[in-house]
Amino acid sequence: MTDQPRLLSPRRLEAFSDGVFAIAATLLVLDLSVDHLGSISNNDQLWHALGAISESVLSFVISFLLLCMLWMVHTRQFEYVKRVDDPVLWLNSLRLLGVVLIPFTTSVNADFSELLLGRLVLPLNFLWVLLFDWALWRYVTTSPRGLLGDMSDDEVRASSRRALGAVVTGLVVVLLAPFIGSWAFLAFAVVPPLDAAIRGRRRRRR
Amino acid sequence: MTDQPRLLSPRRLEAFSDGVFAIAATLLVLDLSVDHLGSISNNDQLWHALGAISESVLSFVISFLLLCMLWMVHTRQFEYVKRVDDPVLWLNSLRLLGVVLIPFTTSVNADFSELLLGRLVLPLNFLWVLLFDWALWRYVTTSPRGLLGDMSDDEVRASSRRALGAVVTGLVVVLLAPFIGSWAFLAFAVVPPLDAAIRGRRRRRR
Amino acid sequence: MTDQPRLLSPRRLEAFSDGVFAIAATLLVLDLSVDHLGSISNNDQLWHALGAISESVLSFVISFLLLCMLWMVHTRQFEYVKRVDDPVLWLNSLRLLGVVLIPFTTSVNADFSELLLGRLVLPLNFLWVLLFDWALWRYVTTSPRGLLGDMSDDEVRASSRRALGAVVTGLVVVLLAPFIGSWAFLAFAVVPPLDAAIRGRRRRRR
Amino acid sequence: MTDQPRLLSPRRLEAFSDGVFAIAATLLVLDLSVDHLGSISNNDQLWHALGAISESVLSFVISFLLLCMLWMVHTRQFEYVKRVDDPVLWLNSLRLLGVVLIPFTTSVNADFSELLLGRLVLPLNFLWVLLFDWALWRYVTTSPRGLLGDMSDDEVRASSRRALGAVVTGLVVVLLAPFIGSWAFLAFAVVPPLDAAIRGRRRRRR
Repeated sequence: MTDQPRLLSPRRLEAFSDGVFAIAATLLVLDLSVDHLGSISNNDQLWHALGAISESVLSFVISFLLLCMLWMVHTRQFEYVKRVDDPVLWLNSLRLLGVVLIPFTTSVNADFSELLLGRLVLPLNFLWVLLFDWALWRYVTTSPRGLLGDMSDDEVRASSRRALGAVVTGLVVVLLAPFIGSWAFLAFAVVPPLDAAIRGRRRRRR
Repeated sequence: MTDQPRLLSPRRLEAFSDGVFAIAATLLVLDLSVDHLGSISNNDQLWHALGAISESVLSFVISFLLLCMLWMVHTRQFEYVKRVDDPVLWLNSLRLLGVVLIPFTTSVNADFSELLLGRLVLPLNFLWVLLFDWALWRYVTTSPRGLLGDMSDDEVRASSRRALGAVVTGLVVVLLAPFIGSWAFLAFAVVPPLDAAIRGRRRRRR
Repeated sequence: MTDQPRLLSPRRLEAFSDGVFAIAATLLVLDLSVDHLGSISNNDQLWHALGAISESVLSFVISFLLLCMLWMVHTRQFEYVKRVDDPVLWLNSLRLLGVVLIPFTTSVNADFSELLLGRLVLPLNFLWVLLFDWALWRYVTTSPRGLLGDMSDDEVRASSRRALGAVVTGLVVVLLAPFIGSWAFLAFAVVPPLDAAIRGRRRRRR
Repeated sequence: MTDQPRLLSPRRLEAFSDGVFAIAATLLVLDLSVDHLGSISNNDQLWHALGAISESVLSFVISFLLLCMLWMVHTRQFEYVKRVDDPVLWLNSLRLLGVVLIPFTTSVNADFSELLLGRLVLPLNFLWVLLFDWALWRYVTTSPRGLLGDMSDDEVRASSRRALGAVVTGLVVVLLAPFIGSWAFLAFAVVPPLDAAIRGRRRRRR
């Protein structure tokens, strides 16, 4: 009984996670390097060289915005979490493991976008993070230890649905990526409003 | 209605942004590398080698100080923001996208400072950040959701003018850079006191 | 007497440490690089190339999770520390010195895992951190300056035992690593529950 | 008058600075790379290779501990600063400019330690930071805007003396470095207790 460690405030988990997200997002830029531009002696050549790395720039922008989205999901979740125990710390670590890998899978995606495997690596990486987002949220909302702060049942249900919806969207991206490459990530912009529209229509019917 | 997510405290947005600014500022130093110094066996050669990278050092110093300035603008803005919603989070992400790119555009600027395009990349990058600074501030001050803390109308007007003034200065830098290169950034040191002087004279006239 | 500096709140020590842990954990990914994949033109080759770096990926995952574990130990300790003085700051710096080295020792471990010395470097690095974890905790709990917050004698004893247990486990890893390589780190997963089980049985006997 | 911006809390200056210190300290490890070890096929060769980079490791350890020391100075100073204005923000930025350069000057120092200039670069870098430490503290303690929190005159005097003493020690290191290289940094360990001893004797005489 004495050995049971105390519940912790999520404060430092948040600081550690913010750091990891910020660093992963910033390391993405290391893939853009003047060394890749080749030898250049006039404006036309620089223009072409920048054009040649435009695919890398696009990969960078997509991954940066998706990382920001994952960070927002994290921030929203922990707005409600008031205490954390060991399983939360570990689930969060496994989630961050996926976050840290994103700079690597982004460059695989940029370099081998014409290969099936190259197209799948980044979507699978995001799916990993979204799965642990959902698992952590499920654990927190069902734990009997009182980890959750003040939150109505409606809010719990809405946020659980959002977490599961993100996993489904992540799965849709994995399925679409072999056919349309990075465009598949647009699902993250399309699915939530679609879901809201369908849900709104249903509600009006009742 | 239930789906409408709560407003968040800006605490974690600040932590994430501070991290991104700090990392971008520190990554700038990776452009300075002993590998660029070449083979060196005496003091004279080291002195010359350090002289040869003096342009890179200058680029580093300029970008570092400009990043510090952008961070200060961010800090001043969020001193007044008490709550954030999704548009604020996304506008801030787009602003940070520009911040993260600065180490890359700085090295483009250092390596191709004799080319028109090389001179324009860094000023355009800064203009991007300043535009989203202004857009975010505009959104926050006009939103009916009560995002702003205790702030008088005069203070709101003064800070909006400062945000717009920064965009104008950024534009001046873009226009001057083709002619005078990195010296154009001195506009950030010259314009604000000039503006204050003109404003002061006008006020005295009334 | 006047020269004696005040005791400080651990707030900034925590922020600095969180930053160092987050960066060390994220820098691990730099070891995974598309440049190591070689020239690839079809799916099979990419599959093989990713298989060829699977040992690096495993090293990355192990070191990432161990770093997360060290961060959790740090977080748990400072949950109870309410004030810090110079010796605490220095002991923490020496602990972080070990944390910062982990990306380097991880790549030594990944590249030379078939050599005795290659196998020992990473376990010794972890032992260093665990030793300073324990030393810092010992200093804090025995200092007469009142560094510790509200904590029962039972809790102090339990946490001291945990800190010493971690050092012993670290030592076991060092001893096993020459024979079973990275599998030795499984000791961190095996020893604590074993210890708890033995302890539980003893208690029931009384 | 309306244009005069409000005084800010030092909270975000601290977060930004902690980030910069943490990243600079962690980037130091990038200088230690398995790529520098050369081709190795047995234990003896790895042992020799690690021995060959021992000078780099020593440089790393010295710079890491000095960075930790500079961070402690920063932390102690801002323990007393309750509000910051623009000059404080800029003086802090110039101080951080020196901090960010340390990974670069450390590798110059490690690679060219047999040259006079190579020996001077790192001590001059530290002197830069210490000078701005002192300038910032001087500004804060003499500003009429009430930036300082609750602090007795004796405490102000003691801390000003410590800041100036650090500058002097930094100068001693610059003067000694041409003759004894990195050993000169031991001055930071020797001078403060020496100073305390002399001061203590004087006090007893009165």
